[in-house]
Amino acid sequence: MEARMKRRLLLIAFVCGATLLVPARNVWTATADSSPSNSLDPLVLVGVAVILIAAKLCGELFERIGQPAVLGELVAGILLGNLVLFGFTAAEPLKSDPVISALAQIGVIILLFEVGLESNLKEMLEVGWSSLLVAVSGVVVLFFLGWGVAAYFMPDSARLVHIFVGATLTATSVGITARVLKDLGRLQTREARIILGAAVIDDVLGLLLLSVVAGAIKAAGTGAPPAMIDIAIIAGKAVAFLLGALLVGHYVTPHIFRGAGRLKARGVLLALSISFCFLLAWVASKVGLAPVVGAFAAGLVLDELHFKSFAEKDESDLQRLIVPLSTIFVPIFFVMVGLRVDLRAFAQLKLLGFAAALTVATILGKQLCSLAVIERKVRRLVIGIGVIPRGEVSLILAGIGTTLFLPNAQGVSEPVVSVGTFGAIVITVIITTLVTPPALKWAMKSRAEG
Amino acid sequence: MEARMKRRLLLIAFVCGATLLVPARNVWTATADSSPSNSLDPLVLVGVAVILIAAKLCGELFERIGQPAVLGELVAGILLGNLVLFGFTAAEPLKSDPVISALAQIGVIILLFEVGLESNLKEMLEVGWSSLLVAVSGVVVLFFLGWGVAAYFMPDSARLVHIFVGATLTATSVGITARVLKDLGRLQTREARIILGAAVIDDVLGLLLLSVVAGAIKAAGTGAPPAMIDIAIIAGKAVAFLLGALLVGHYVTPHIFRGAGRLKARGVLLALSISFCFLLAWVASKVGLAPVVGAFAAGLVLDELHFKSFAEKDESDLQRLIVPLSTIFVPIFFVMVGLRVDLRAFAQLKLLGFAAALTVATILGKQLCSLAVIERKVRRLVIGIGVIPRGEVSLILAGIGTTLFLPNAQGVSEPVVSVGTFGAIVITVIITTLVTPPALKWAMKSRAEG
Repeated sequence: MEARMKRRLLLIAFVCGATLLVPARNVWTATADSSPSNSLDPLVLVGVAVILIAAKLCGELFERIGQPAVLGELVAGILLGNLVLFGFTAAEPLKSDPVISALAQIGVIILLFEVGLESNLKEMLEVGWSSLLVAVSGVVVLFFLGWGVAAYFMPDSARLVHIFVGATLTATSVGITARVLKDLGRLQTREARIILGAAVIDDVLGLLLLSVVAGAIKAAGTGAPPAMIDIAIIAGKAVAFLLGALLVGHYVTPHIFRGAGRLKARGVLLALSISFCFLLAWVASKVGLAPVVGAFAAGLVLDELHFKSFAEKDESDLQRLIVPLSTIFVPIFFVMVGLRVDLRAFAQLKLLGFAAALTVATILGKQLCSLAVIERKVRRLVIGIGVIPRGEVSLILAGIGTTLFLPNAQGVSEPVVSVGTFGAIVITVIITTLVTPPALKWAMKSRAEG
Repeated sequence: MEARMKRRLLLIAFVCGATLLVPARNVWTATADSSPSNSLDPLVLVGVAVILIAAKLCGELFERIGQPAVLGELVAGILLGNLVLFGFTAAEPLKSDPVISALAQIGVIILLFEVGLESNLKEMLEVGWSSLLVAVSGVVVLFFLGWGVAAYFMPDSARLVHIFVGATLTATSVGITARVLKDLGRLQTREARIILGAAVIDDVLGLLLLSVVAGAIKAAGTGAPPAMIDIAIIAGKAVAFLLGALLVGHYVTPHIFRGAGRLKARGVLLALSISFCFLLAWVASKVGLAPVVGAFAAGLVLDELHFKSFAEKDESDLQRLIVPLSTIFVPIFFVMVGLRVDLRAFAQLKLLGFAAALTVATILGKQLCSLAVIERKVRRLVIGIGVIPRGEVSLILAGIGTTLFLPNAQGVSEPVVSVGTFGAIVITVIITTLVTPPALKWAMKSRAEG
């Protein structure tokens, strides 16, 4: 009976498969051309599915060997993007699909919103002067080191290109750093708090620096010389935007969310928070800043205290509600970053040298700035190693750089971050992140013994 | 002291505002042209924010007057889309933005996945013959009534256009019906189970019918006469796809999810489920079916039992994990549907008549099919009223119809569902949904008294 049942099922499966293989006119894809605004390109469906599966598999692999999952997602993208080296071109359309690209950009906006939500303004102010000094000295040292390395390896490019590479090196990865410290069970130590505080301040300074440099590039691109007044205006706007967002967050947002808490509709908190995040990202882009700055500011000013009125509906925990969104969107961003790394560019030995020099500059520069710690009884080495990982913000900055154009020494317009430079920056992010967990483990241990 | 503090804050706010108003070259939007694949159009950010806020506000309004929130979302879209009547054109670009449109399509895929997750195959089989009879007779009656009404009001259009309108009328809204019954506290009654079972079967039959009709239209559009063999192949494929999906769901998926449960990476269940949903939607589109059929099938075959291995990680409840995604994506779909209703089309009295005739046909046709209930001791009137609401699937079908083209009597190619017809179908959905809650309340009450 059991065997007959199985045979019958096999027969059904065979008939189903055979029927599906019968060729017939494809209704859904063919109509996509006639009205692009109303049907979804099937490529998006299969693309997102492949990206998510690859991201989770590689993420798992990297977690098993003691590395953060985000590295796995980058590597998944690099593998998918370079399948073409083996003659497999099916993944090529993903690189230029506008919808998947938009989903990736929404992913990074949600990521920065989430990081903002996790950072508490008050706690950030409490970690005190050590974090600020480590952050500021780190940004200054890495900015000039990156500038110098870029100038040495790309003597033909415009000076603003070198400056831009310096800016991309300045931001320390909050996500990667926090994850590594958490995995080591040292999140509550004094060193950890200084490291995390410095990483957050780094991100803000990096984004400010980016706004200034990009503004100068834009000004130079239009033919006008980069006027100091333009740079001053952009820097002023960035500071004004952050201060303005903080004021709005302190005086206006609580009233809005308290009012919204009285609404009965389902999912009001999440919808309103995402709207707030997108609106601030939009305002940031309108005043000349990167949208991610707005998303980070939105997360920073939204405080758990505002959500009390949602508590009775069991949907007061925004950080928990946002997790499914970031689970789906954020990996798309990292895989798309990896997709754009062209391994063929590394056939040039010079580029490998460039990546190596940027990595060494980061590691040594960070040891230098750890000397700025004013507190005693903390291991400067631990802090110096803890702030090594370059991360999401560096990748965001590099990505933005590929969309900015400047004339080079020959007067030809070229992207500020070329394919080669982009690859070098991604490799720097990967290597600095790879070395941190074992190095930190070693530094923490030698402290316990000493 | 307090007053001085306030004055100081006002001053800061003023300076911030003034700085932000200084005009400067916009870096982010200007670069969007040079590399569309790497930066997000700010319109998407502000568009999604406005859509979500409008959806939640109108949804709230409708819930307060005892109507389902989905109606409010449709009305929000209609309001936004017809602001142009008052000379306000800011919302016009939303109608044709490809990224927002893609988000809406992803929204309806997630909605059908969610509906599939909530439907249990076993329970669906248990509700028995009454549901099946109500569903089949309802589909047949409404299909021919819709066909007749369309033929009467649009004598110049091709016969396949009339047939398509008939097909859009066949699907009963599972979401709206379930919501109304839940709000009335009657979800566990015998009538409710028959109604819900019939609504689910309706949806499947409607989607099958759509596949067949759309296939015939496509065949006719290419110049060839609609061959019976094509229609048979499409119908066969639809059935084969559903059976195949069920077999895969029963024999393959449990192993995959059990294996995935052993992975340590965060969010594996959600990422894998969404990938599975998107892959089945892609396969459905590849074999000539609507992607939503695949999404529904994916939800139907994913069973809570597969997720046991995720339980220890506190992420075993897929229905709960998917809520934040549907909270954000689904309203975008309904608002976009509303956006496309052009109220100016209703200046023609004929179109109002068309909408009214479709509505009356639905209401009367459903009373007719309620006679098919074979069980005793149930109020046929309650069932007849319960299955009135046309819903998401009707809107999906109508939307697909706007992307299909056919030559009319004059030989000019025109969309199968014109702007006017689309408006009439949306109005029918709105009115049938509006009348159901009070009518059902009345019918339930008169039973309790009788």
